[in-house]
Amino acid sequence: MGPESRVHFRRAAIIGVGLIGASAALAMRERDICDEIAGFGRREENLRRAKERGIIDDYRTDAASSVEGADLVILATPVGILGKLAAAIRPALKKGAVVTDVGSVKGALVAELEALMPEGVHFIGSHPIAGSDKSGIDEARGNLFSGARCIVTPTPRSDKSAMDMIVSMWEAAGALVECMDAFRHDEIFALVSHMPHIIAYAMVNAVEAADPRCVEYSGGGFRDTTRIAASSPELWRDIAMMNRGNLIRVIASFRENLDKIEKCLEGNDAQGLERELIRAQKLRMSIEKQEASKHTPMP
Amino acid sequence: MGPESRVHFRRAAIIGVGLIGASAALAMRERDICDEIAGFGRREENLRRAKERGIIDDYRTDAASSVEGADLVILATPVGILGKLAAAIRPALKKGAVVTDVGSVKGALVAELEALMPEGVHFIGSHPIAGSDKSGIDEARGNLFSGARCIVTPTPRSDKSAMDMIVSMWEAAGALVECMDAFRHDEIFALVSHMPHIIAYAMVNAVEAADPRCVEYSGGGFRDTTRIAASSPELWRDIAMMNRGNLIRVIASFRENLDKIEKCLEGNDAQGLERELIRAQKLRMSIEKQEASKHTPMP
Repeated sequence: MGPESRVHFRRAAIIGVGLIGASAALAMRERDICDEIAGFGRREENLRRAKERGIIDDYRTDAASSVEGADLVILATPVGILGKLAAAIRPALKKGAVVTDVGSVKGALVAELEALMPEGVHFIGSHPIAGSDKSGIDEARGNLFSGARCIVTPTPRSDKSAMDMIVSMWEAAGALVECMDAFRHDEIFALVSHMPHIIAYAMVNAVEAADPRCVEYSGGGFRDTTRIAASSPELWRDIAMMNRGNLIRVIASFRENLDKIEKCLEGNDAQGLERELIRAQKLRMSIEKQEASKHTPMP
Repeated sequence: MGPESRVHFRRAAIIGVGLIGASAALAMRERDICDEIAGFGRREENLRRAKERGIIDDYRTDAASSVEGADLVILATPVGILGKLAAAIRPALKKGAVVTDVGSVKGALVAELEALMPEGVHFIGSHPIAGSDKSGIDEARGNLFSGARCIVTPTPRSDKSAMDMIVSMWEAAGALVECMDAFRHDEIFALVSHMPHIIAYAMVNAVEAADPRCVEYSGGGFRDTTRIAASSPELWRDIAMMNRGNLIRVIASFRENLDKIEKCLEGNDAQGLERELIRAQKLRMSIEKQEASKHTPMP
């Protein structure tokens, strides 16, 4: 029995029809995870286009009415407004509905959203690792989650069957689901996602401060390292702020490692410098190998 | 008259048959820039494979004899050994030969190599902006320089006709050549290339120090930002060391810009943080636009 047959929703509501929300809608359609999809978002023009393209079936211009009758609600807006949104949809949530999100920050946010749910409605936090510097429905695609990892963060209070539904939904969308404590999630993603974003922004600002015209000489190295600095400032402002404790700690650790390299440069210590570079290269190449093995056909 | 007909060499010698050296050889063959190509490198096995694949016509196991009879010599080894190599080939250089390099550091190195040339032989520094984290002849391709920028760094002592030959050679290989002072080159590339490499290495080391297993959770953001940390430690040790003055200065500027973001995180200043992110996003998106316009067909 494939995962597609394990979960089915009659009506889903996507709150925030952007890259992730629209891709989730397309995945649910293509894989027959639900019958109809309602959308809600800040810009009606975007919702109209999403409907025209068959991403959603209908849309509402207020959040509460968009979730009426939905047995699955996916909150896919920037994390900064999730609390406010959850409070707004609360009165309209159908008994038995399951609510999830796609936010890059979990921790206290999951506890907050869980506590906001009315009797008989369950919140289960999710984080599909599938974003990019791109955003908007033009970039959406139904296979965005295929082979991507998706972290699901149950709490001690989580309803078992709601959790199974969310796990099955992501699996049916093609994701590799892993359950993890919400606070542990934030420690890990401070390191492998939030810090790289902050550093990419700071690196571009260093060029901007020195001489912005220099970017014209940038090659693939600069473009790759700073690609994520083209990401939405609003989105990343919220993520960084909501995970600031962990982020401040990992930036401190990054600074220590940069210090080591700088001391080698200052002390003209070529051997010490090479040791630092080799340490990084070794770990970085192990990721390439992981990537490569992912693309190996299954036996 | 196309650029191909403007320059022609009878015999070229490639010292260091790696990604850049082999791609230069392939470009020269495909675009009829020279009749025959000799190779020299540290590993005979690599030279043999380069010959088998038709990248070079023959090879020598000592540097000096590889340049005998060559009217063009391209030094394509890591920058750290260029001085030693130039001294080694010096006695064998043919009168009238033109020597260039492909190093990512110019500045004092150009003056050093220029001074090492015997009477009647001219050195002109080059830096084609076409590397990546990849290396070796398996990655080599004749169109590596097509549309890529190539910086040529003449000095007040440069021979005009030698310079014209090097500029024409790169243009014939498809590159967009720009002449620039060697020291100015190093200031610019400290900012847009050498700093991003050092920071990528430091970022991976921060993850390694905290918990290397976390890389398994990394998404496209971490992979893009740290891709260049898979680059050759030997190569980047030399580049960083030879441009350490500029590099130390730009890392200081990067730290100042990171400080600004950290202060916002520490002070819970979401608005200030967003301002920093917007500043970076704006400049970073201007590069995407440059890139996109490059791919627009010429009228």
